[in-house]
Amino acid sequence: MDPGRARELFAAARVARLATVRPDGSPRLVPVTFAVRGDLVVTAVDHKPKTTTALRRLTDIEARPRVCLLADHYDDGDWTRLWWARADGHARVAHDGAPETEWLAEKYPQYRDHPPRGPAVLITVDHWSGWPG
Amino acid sequence: MDPGRARELFAAARVARLATVRPDGSPRLVPVTFAVRGDLVVTAVDHKPKTTTALRRLTDIEARPRVCLLADHYDDGDWTRLWWARADGHARVAHDGAPETEWLAEKYPQYRDHPPRGPAVLITVDHWSGWPG
Repeated sequence: MDPGRARELFAAARVARLATVRPDGSPRLVPVTFAVRGDLVVTAVDHKPKTTTALRRLTDIEARPRVCLLADHYDDGDWTRLWWARADGHARVAHDGAPETEWLAEKYPQYRDHPPRGPAVLITVDHWSGWPG
Repeated sequence: MDPGRARELFAAARVARLATVRPDGSPRLVPVTFAVRGDLVVTAVDHKPKTTTALRRLTDIEARPRVCLLADHYDDGDWTRLWWARADGHARVAHDGAPETEWLAEKYPQYRDHPPRGPAVLITVDHWSGWPG
């Protein structure tokens, strides 16, 4: 899949999974809401506060900024329709939030009355990829 | 979420995402079909052959066996129904396949006529977790 198409499919998805690397070197996964503009992805730390979980993700990123995000489509009834789109990049934590968090409220009506607060994670994507080609 | 409930939700999901760690230390994500018995998870390398992608995943695992798997439920219309279940464990590659691959054919009718061939990935789960509690 060409990078432009991977970005397009990724950006339109409603949920993605964020992989970070723990201090012990093992990977950690959480689902995230997100929004994309160009090669920048913003994710809020959480819809509902889950302090410990959120802190761990941020600690991971501050020690090892390289992350991976995946969006995919699964269709149990038709495996010819499967696809996935992946964003590899490096993340930074904006502890006091970031203006890009507004993108989330534009994408998800759920955030309009309750915009995400607290830290934001901003990911600069270095490589978009996907399947099928 | 207690570990038993996390395992139950995870096992019933139709798709999961597998995170491995690349040789350069960055995380890699792919969606996988999978089946669970007890604390053992089997994934086929691919529904359709994607040789390069598959090889990379196997190389990752052989160098760094610790992996993370995530299943989640997203409901755009009702964020009170979101959940995720995570399996952290260590993986090994069975290059000539494994009897556990049969579990995939039991779970997915799609595999009955075309059982997965080639390498299998077997993950022994050390820790089940999930959200909400």
